Amino acid sequence: MKTKKLDVGDKVSLKTKSKAWEGLILESHDPEVILLKLKSGYNIGIRESEILNIRVIAKSKPIEKKPAKLTEKKTLPNIALIITGGTISSRLDSKTGAVVSTDAEELLTIAPELKEICNIIKIEKPFMKFSEDMDSLDWKKIAQTAEKLLNSKEISGLIITHGTDTLHYTSAALSFYIQNLNKPIALTYSQRSIDRGSTDAALNLLCAARYAISDIAEVSIVGHKNLNDEICLAMSGTKTRKMHTSRRDTFKIVNSTPLAEISKDKFEILKEFNARDNNKKVKLDIKYSDKVALVKVYPGKSPTILDFYAKQGYKGIILELTGLGHTPSKQSKHNWIPTIKKLIKSGITICGTPQTIYGRLNPNVYSSGRDLQKTKLIFLEDMLPETALVKLSWVLAHPSWAKDKSKIKEKMLTSITGEISEECESGFEF
Amino acid sequence: MKTKKLDVGDKVSLKTKSKAWEGLILESHDPEVILLKLKSGYNIGIRESEILNIRVIAKSKPIEKKPAKLTEKKTLPNIALIITGGTISSRLDSKTGAVVSTDAEELLTIAPELKEICNIIKIEKPFMKFSEDMDSLDWKKIAQTAEKLLNSKEISGLIITHGTDTLHYTSAALSFYIQNLNKPIALTYSQRSIDRGSTDAALNLLCAARYAISDIAEVSIVGHKNLNDEICLAMSGTKTRKMHTSRRDTFKIVNSTPLAEISKDKFEILKEFNARDNNKKVKLDIKYSDKVALVKVYPGKSPTILDFYAKQGYKGIILELTGLGHTPSKQSKHNWIPTIKKLIKSGITICGTPQTIYGRLNPNVYSSGRDLQKTKLIFLEDMLPETALVKLSWVLAHPSWAKDKSKIKEKMLTSITGEISEECESGFEF
Repeated sequence: MKTKKLDVGDKVSLKTKSKAWEGLILESHDPEVILLKLKSGYNIGIRESEILNIRVIAKSKPIEKKPAKLTEKKTLPNIALIITGGTISSRLDSKTGAVVSTDAEELLTIAPELKEICNIIKIEKPFMKFSEDMDSLDWKKIAQTAEKLLNSKEISGLIITHGTDTLHYTSAALSFYIQNLNKPIALTYSQRSIDRGSTDAALNLLCAARYAISDIAEVSIVGHKNLNDEICLAMSGTKTRKMHTSRRDTFKIVNSTPLAEISKDKFEILKEFNARDNNKKVKLDIKYSDKVALVKVYPGKSPTILDFYAKQGYKGIILELTGLGHTPSKQSKHNWIPTIKKLIKSGITICGTPQTIYGRLNPNVYSSGRDLQKTKLIFLEDMLPETALVKLSWVLAHPSWAKDKSKIKEKMLTSITGEISEECESGFEF
Repeated sequence: MKTKKLDVGDKVSLKTKSKAWEGLILESHDPEVILLKLKSGYNIGIRESEILNIRVIAKSKPIEKKPAKLTEKKTLPNIALIITGGTISSRLDSKTGAVVSTDAEELLTIAPELKEICNIIKIEKPFMKFSEDMDSLDWKKIAQTAEKLLNSKEISGLIITHGTDTLHYTSAALSFYIQNLNKPIALTYSQRSIDRGSTDAALNLLCAARYAISDIAEVSIVGHKNLNDEICLAMSGTKTRKMHTSRRDTFKIVNSTPLAEISKDKFEILKEFNARDNNKKVKLDIKYSDKVALVKVYPGKSPTILDFYAKQGYKGIILELTGLGHTPSKQSKHNWIPTIKKLIKSGITICGTPQTIYGRLNPNVYSSGRDLQKTKLIFLEDMLPETALVKLSWVLAHPSWAKDKSKIKEKMLTSITGEISEECESGFEF
């Protein structure tokens, strides 16, 4: 048996008649099959009998667990860390080849330079989840935890670590939930688990810490600017979107410019910001209606989907419109305009956002846009669909606003935390 | 009265106490209000009494209508043009300030250099629509018109002009409908109507013509590479998406590279292509099921939407999944996995695409992805959600494929016309 000396976790290269493979040995349930975790992230099973030769490149090492020491240097500012789960709190499980949650403290050992920037005097773990499983109740827990920390005199700013899948929904929610913001909130992440040499967590944490001690009292996503492991951007929590399944620079600012560019030795502010005021106290405004839907318009789609939501008691709908703000109209067999008009008359709030993601709506140019305006649909300028979903859910959960159509429109079209850009801003540099 | 000498269509600058304006005079229904079309595309009404002074920059000119002369030069290749409507067939209506459809032939007068590249010996107008109103019946008409032209010995290639809103859905449909493609098909557009100095139609048409006479027998979207009015890209009809509401370079290649870069004096091929074969005949395979839906997964969304589609008799659903291919799962109060499993068991095909748009799914990395795999959901690699919608609608309308689950899976995971990229390709250069 060619593989008897192998241990789970060993890095090996092996050859079969047709191909050569390199990867980590995983625990296999079939003793005649070698299970390999490839660099691509895929697992592959190879029959022992097909292996021509196999070579160990590196033996597996047990993961050392050092407890994080929360030692203080008096000259440095103090910050707090909220850990919520995700890849940045994960490591590879060598039994299954999958990524699993790990200890909160393990996270700190991977970025020892943090100690030169700040003292992390408090770590909170309101829950541990991959972000695809989060919803508004989790956003509420994060906001409540953040309030306590931000209103503490001891703490200069906050880092929140989070899964990437829905980080931009959470950042939008916190932007509306945490009013009267006094200090910086850096949401950060990693796309590679922290036990991998290629992890992006160390730089992201460092830059998040530099943001957390800055004077920018805004909710930002802080992460890689590009594939080089050197520079991060701080990007507004309401103008940022996950734009790639796997790249480290997955978060992109849309229709705006980043707040700051951050590296180990540089902190360059790129636009006006809301300044730190340690004497201010944050006020929570946590409200959320689950009865708001996000619906994309596309060729051949019937507007009966809107009736479905109306019957289910939905109070608001965000449409991802085509082009400058259109739906199928007069010339289509599925004219959406009468249904939209009917539902808005019945008291449902319907807003439009660009399906193109980038750019601003302008419903004045074409007749279908002008007909759509007559329905009283609210065109949300250049707001991201995801941010619009979160904002409308928040607005409609305020009873004193929700009872008044003109108040809802006013709130949706007022940029409360930067979610609508000034005309001149752009974030479309492909 | 300061404005009595003004005509509809005049370009003016005027001042009020608070502001200065510049724009085109539109027909106003209130004689005391001047209606201006601003450069931004917006219309504004200004009370005559508030105008301090007004100056005519340019008097309106009636649009000259020259019939397009289809003169032939024997040395040049012959191509055909299919006109379907959209901004590229439109001009500004000075009565309403909106963009309206215009004559097909007007289009040709704006790019006189076309005559140096090719002879346009045939112009077909199967219908005239803005593309937000199109659906699969329109795609069918275009494909049938294209078949006749492509199978004619006289014609070297095809230009199709089209609105931008849903151009990428049409390009995907034509890629599947027109099998055994023998000659180039260039779909092109404009973002500014053709009577405006800033129109992008002229360059797009020129580059589309150069593509149509090339050896690349593929369905491509041909349009501006960037904001300079100098270079176009030819981009695969199944890997391209409208990514900006208003910019001329709105169409972007996703997870792939363009086929060619084209300018007035350059035609650079950038990747392998399917070569022209004038002896081949195209075969139409026009099939489309309207019972396929596109659904985005987001925090707090209930999977009951899937039951709604099942009850409506839908046969297929494309999910826009989060991250590497996830839905809310075990840790969420809205666990989508049991519903997906149930519907797939009942015979509905459910496929996944990336909600991030860019990047490839990899459901092996995280537990929610692995649990989702057990439902038999088909993970469509790096396919665009819009292309996936069109493809699944096409696949499920083939009775001999649709009756066999493994055949459906095989068809969806086989790249028929480039809709799934090779691992190494990238199109994420922000």
